Amino acid sequence: MATGRIKLGMLGGGEGAFIGIAHRIAAYMGEKYELVGGAFDVDYQRGMAFAETLELNQSRVYPDVQSLIEKENELPADQRMEVVSIVTPNFLHFPMAKSLLEGGFHVICEKPMTMTVAEAEELDHLVSQTGKQFCLTHTYTGYPMVRQMKSMIASGQIGEIQRVDVQYYQGWINPVIHDTEKRKSVWRLDPAKSGISCCMGDIGLHAFNLAEYVTGSEIDQVLADLNYLYDDNTLDVDGTVLIRMGQAKGVIRSSQIATGEENNLTIQVYGKTGALKWQQEQPTVLTWLTEDQPAQILKPGNSYNSKLAMDSTKMAPGHPEGIFDAMGNLYLGLAKAIRNLPVQSGEYPTVTDGLRGMKFIEKVVLSHREDNIWITI
Amino acid sequence: MATGRIKLGMLGGGEGAFIGIAHRIAAYMGEKYELVGGAFDVDYQRGMAFAETLELNQSRVYPDVQSLIEKENELPADQRMEVVSIVTPNFLHFPMAKSLLEGGFHVICEKPMTMTVAEAEELDHLVSQTGKQFCLTHTYTGYPMVRQMKSMIASGQIGEIQRVDVQYYQGWINPVIHDTEKRKSVWRLDPAKSGISCCMGDIGLHAFNLAEYVTGSEIDQVLADLNYLYDDNTLDVDGTVLIRMGQAKGVIRSSQIATGEENNLTIQVYGKTGALKWQQEQPTVLTWLTEDQPAQILKPGNSYNSKLAMDSTKMAPGHPEGIFDAMGNLYLGLAKAIRNLPVQSGEYPTVTDGLRGMKFIEKVVLSHREDNIWITI
Amino acid sequence: MATGRIKLGMLGGGEGAFIGIAHRIAAYMGEKYELVGGAFDVDYQRGMAFAETLELNQSRVYPDVQSLIEKENELPADQRMEVVSIVTPNFLHFPMAKSLLEGGFHVICEKPMTMTVAEAEELDHLVSQTGKQFCLTHTYTGYPMVRQMKSMIASGQIGEIQRVDVQYYQGWINPVIHDTEKRKSVWRLDPAKSGISCCMGDIGLHAFNLAEYVTGSEIDQVLADLNYLYDDNTLDVDGTVLIRMGQAKGVIRSSQIATGEENNLTIQVYGKTGALKWQQEQPTVLTWLTEDQPAQILKPGNSYNSKLAMDSTKMAPGHPEGIFDAMGNLYLGLAKAIRNLPVQSGEYPTVTDGLRGMKFIEKVVLSHREDNIWITI
Amino acid sequence: MATGRIKLGMLGGGEGAFIGIAHRIAAYMGEKYELVGGAFDVDYQRGMAFAETLELNQSRVYPDVQSLIEKENELPADQRMEVVSIVTPNFLHFPMAKSLLEGGFHVICEKPMTMTVAEAEELDHLVSQTGKQFCLTHTYTGYPMVRQMKSMIASGQIGEIQRVDVQYYQGWINPVIHDTEKRKSVWRLDPAKSGISCCMGDIGLHAFNLAEYVTGSEIDQVLADLNYLYDDNTLDVDGTVLIRMGQAKGVIRSSQIATGEENNLTIQVYGKTGALKWQQEQPTVLTWLTEDQPAQILKPGNSYNSKLAMDSTKMAPGHPEGIFDAMGNLYLGLAKAIRNLPVQSGEYPTVTDGLRGMKFIEKVVLSHREDNIWITI
Repeated sequence: MATGRIKLGMLGGGEGAFIGIAHRIAAYMGEKYELVGGAFDVDYQRGMAFAETLELNQSRVYPDVQSLIEKENELPADQRMEVVSIVTPNFLHFPMAKSLLEGGFHVICEKPMTMTVAEAEELDHLVSQTGKQFCLTHTYTGYPMVRQMKSMIASGQIGEIQRVDVQYYQGWINPVIHDTEKRKSVWRLDPAKSGISCCMGDIGLHAFNLAEYVTGSEIDQVLADLNYLYDDNTLDVDGTVLIRMGQAKGVIRSSQIATGEENNLTIQVYGKTGALKWQQEQPTVLTWLTEDQPAQILKPGNSYNSKLAMDSTKMAPGHPEGIFDAMGNLYLGLAKAIRNLPVQSGEYPTVTDGLRGMKFIEKVVLSHREDNIWITI
Repeated sequence: MATGRIKLGMLGGGEGAFIGIAHRIAAYMGEKYELVGGAFDVDYQRGMAFAETLELNQSRVYPDVQSLIEKENELPADQRMEVVSIVTPNFLHFPMAKSLLEGGFHVICEKPMTMTVAEAEELDHLVSQTGKQFCLTHTYTGYPMVRQMKSMIASGQIGEIQRVDVQYYQGWINPVIHDTEKRKSVWRLDPAKSGISCCMGDIGLHAFNLAEYVTGSEIDQVLADLNYLYDDNTLDVDGTVLIRMGQAKGVIRSSQIATGEENNLTIQVYGKTGALKWQQEQPTVLTWLTEDQPAQILKPGNSYNSKLAMDSTKMAPGHPEGIFDAMGNLYLGLAKAIRNLPVQSGEYPTVTDGLRGMKFIEKVVLSHREDNIWITI
Repeated sequence: MATGRIKLGMLGGGEGAFIGIAHRIAAYMGEKYELVGGAFDVDYQRGMAFAETLELNQSRVYPDVQSLIEKENELPADQRMEVVSIVTPNFLHFPMAKSLLEGGFHVICEKPMTMTVAEAEELDHLVSQTGKQFCLTHTYTGYPMVRQMKSMIASGQIGEIQRVDVQYYQGWINPVIHDTEKRKSVWRLDPAKSGISCCMGDIGLHAFNLAEYVTGSEIDQVLADLNYLYDDNTLDVDGTVLIRMGQAKGVIRSSQIATGEENNLTIQVYGKTGALKWQQEQPTVLTWLTEDQPAQILKPGNSYNSKLAMDSTKMAPGHPEGIFDAMGNLYLGLAKAIRNLPVQSGEYPTVTDGLRGMKFIEKVVLSHREDNIWITI
Repeated sequence: MATGRIKLGMLGGGEGAFIGIAHRIAAYMGEKYELVGGAFDVDYQRGMAFAETLELNQSRVYPDVQSLIEKENELPADQRMEVVSIVTPNFLHFPMAKSLLEGGFHVICEKPMTMTVAEAEELDHLVSQTGKQFCLTHTYTGYPMVRQMKSMIASGQIGEIQRVDVQYYQGWINPVIHDTEKRKSVWRLDPAKSGISCCMGDIGLHAFNLAEYVTGSEIDQVLADLNYLYDDNTLDVDGTVLIRMGQAKGVIRSSQIATGEENNLTIQVYGKTGALKWQQEQPTVLTWLTEDQPAQILKPGNSYNSKLAMDSTKMAPGHPEGIFDAMGNLYLGLAKAIRNLPVQSGEYPTVTDGLRGMKFIEKVVLSHREDNIWITI
């Protein structure tokens, strides 16, 4: 039986990878993990060189997922990797996660979880079968004020939900999309690597997940209008999705051609007696509207927050924690599960959220292709 | 020929009327009008009493529009009302405007302009025929920073438009709609007085108008999903409208059940090289995003603004002007037209905007009834 | 006895005058005044031409204050001016106000009230003696949320005051002060027209007044460090004033060389159990901090506001009112006093506030000259 | 010669310590340090238990600084601690830092650096003598936008400085200070542990340091008015400090009785041609004001930032980094120095900053005691 910190491996995330550093810092944050090795790059030499910059033991750096599984399983149980983070492009998520689960490892996986719903269902099945833990890194669910929002809605503080509105606007594809050559160089615009959707599959998906996370309810139906901008561009870069969620209606708005926007994810949920609003770029502020009373501004670390929100903060009020802290909270939640400690609902997204997400992507693209009709998820 | 200030009359806007005071102050603001009389109330005595509080000459207070037209036309030209503001519930706009135009008066009219597209077309025809001026009070087009937005888009400062997103959220119907009795007491929820739509006809319309105003382009198609909340409620109180505007796509989001919201109208327009964002509740701020450069915050009264925006400000920078000032700018624009002075494009909305708006309402409701299909405006 | 609207005259405020239009619109706003004439310009012809643009009766346009007093007093009581607004440079305030009070007129006066404390005391005496009303236009006290702040502090909602911090930063003198020639052309930098202080006498004074207004307490002592920037510049353009107010301490910070600032007046008052914060450039927001509870955002027009604040708003919540509305509230308060209607405390500043202000200016300059020592006001 | 990650020890920061976790996470962030042991608690057993929660080797947990120095020096060079973080109450900083430097260790130290200027001078001397690195954790200098502010001022983008205004408002002492018993339980209010000042020594000091950091200039003189609130309270809890900095004037405002404030540190620097403003609670925003142009909003990670600012960001624009990231940047800077890599000016505060700070505290308290006179630092 393993003792001490949880031994963590990583697939992808090598030199220059934006998301690798986020996962490594997230793992350090809760002081529950130790990165011991991985396969950081498709080019083995480059992966080795990268591992050296992290002072990792070269014997734990592997050329691919198969050798990682094989060699790690030869190690004594107390040295062996227990969990592996998959931070590669989308098309590798499924085969890697499958192999890892089958190989006896817990899995942390970037989103979208797979390329298709069928794959997602297979993974869902496999997680049940193996009894391994699976954490999908919908990072934004790790912010204390997002968790406070979830807690307040669950406890009825805004009443029955009437309207949900989520926005995720970025502008980063804009300088790429208008140039046919540049466009080809971006893996997110390549269906073979990205899947059937770019904008919706990447960030619309976060918006969808956030809506279901904070409300604790499922979106029933979608009607989508996507924008591909150019006829020879095969993946969406912008879109609007009408949603129905029980009695409530709403909208998901998502764009990668919202010129000048950086990472502008916002959510507004309106209930019968109040509303809650949050913006990712100012994550320490949660606005609570009620009828006839002043709006209230909630901030992390204050005793009026829920246990779920309080447990997600490390510092005293007024000391901003950011995106690494949010992802760190997911890693921390998973660590509890791996160590068989009690986990609150909402501490980290699971394979179930991953399956929901893949359905969302598939139905949204279908709705658009069918000339914008309602599709049940 | 009339000299001195423009003689103004008013229909509606009596005791307790929220909108009457807005029009009166707007008229004073530019120092170009003099309120000389009107028919302020369906109850003549109450209208007379109200007029007395304004120190108006009792001989110019009328029981209805017909007597106003008749008696005013008996007065010498230099004393006679030249323009009349219609600030009544929706169903009276058309018959009053028609009578006034035919009676020889210029008209200022609240929105929506009429109850139907057919009425709007008749009014449009009548304005051409009579040569009278017609100002539709889409107040928000009077804000300096909205006008600056229009000027900047027109001069290409954000490039070709890629996405348009307008939000108009209020919560005022929320305490009314859930109570069958209360609901009946609100004229805006009564089709006989309000027309075929409540939320879209009242505030969705402002959002639509604002989108066309700032972009200088027409919305081609709409696909709407409205929310009536209760089966026995006949008018929408919430809705989302997908829009297409040339190459651009976008969305109009509008709600009167956005609990806790006051008058939260916002607009975001994303172009190929930049974006502009504005919020009505903080009207002195216009945010300009560009690629690779810091966001810029434009404020009224500064010399970097367009002539149209500069002419809409009376004070030095940093002295906030508000909603009365915005409406005042519409009155001021119309005054120039009445006095045959040069008027810039965009100084006040006309009967053409009113006709566009009625088409929007009709098509949006039709789209919803036809199970959310695209309708060309 | 006069009936109808209050007959208003004006001294100064002619062609191009920034402050004249503010007073005229403020007077229209409450619909209680009628501008009937004045002496608008030191150049009589120019004043006549200006009056014509306002459609005023030429017989009521005067070359100077003396002829205004004389001729108006010859008119029948029901036509005669009852109140006159003084909107000239500082050095004319005292002689004009004195003549008007002695001539039987109520007075509205721009700040600073006089050039010296001695003059202020004489005016204070004269107001008592004549029984005439006197309104000093500290415009910022007319904002609904400033009034709400006053009401909340008075009713103990933040407890005993511990710290007061007022900022008034502008940058307008910056492009002028560094150029010896330009500097000479600005009347505010000329002691003969401006008095003994520029920055403190103009805007530091507003900060001082606001502190005393919202707290309902007097500042006891000041210690000032002023900045003149150049040896040959005789009036301050920047300064910081330590203040003591009973048990509380605090600071007034004021600058006209705060490059890029427009009209950045802010006030923060910290009490034993809570705090209130307000910013002039976003005047519809009042932030209320308390221990252990979320911050609250109060906005005008909502029923949770005090009567004083509610009476200062004309529109429904979410419809921003601005600087003209604020000044309009002062005019409205004075109108009640002139018509012997009940006036709440705080509806408009009086000669007493003017005298306090002149003492502030004198003591602040004295403190600085004596090498920054404490001076009792 | 040591290879691999820098071996880090810690003094203090045990169970429940707010600041210990900040330092540990900061150390992980840059992936350059490995925490190997320390003396975490005055109670050795408690310290051992705490170290166990961090999975540390028990042989590297020490009862006190002396045994840490002795035992670590017995270890082979490549295992030995190279740098030790001091995160204890103030009175222990000096003796611990002295022993560590003399014992051959680099030092990371919390602020204020010592209890007196004399101690600070001794430390300054010792650092020169030993050639060891010394990092003082003025965490706020680690924020990318603070560093951008420093770079922009250094390169003349706001011109010669005219006014500096720093605010550091907290409310945490408020619930303690009004209760004689509670007040005694707080070490920061005990001169034996805290030194001659509470508010100025703790947070006024950060404000002072920030002012000197961003401007690259020294504050020459101070005049302070402190507030102790109660006669039997021996340390200040609030105060205002007038400052002079070359030609510029300004103010430091600092309070721990600003009820409801969390950690509200702000800085505004006004130059001859522009201004820069930053707020700690929204650390990703830097506002740049210029004359006659729109204000600009700078955010981390964008290519328009300086190298110093860019190097302080790990993620793409729009992904908020927070207080741990800021402190992590200090640790990262020091790591470069320890490894003899090139260090840019401003990457971490040194013993020189610590000495400046102790002078500030001493002079501010002296100024107050001498009845608020100017004292040269």
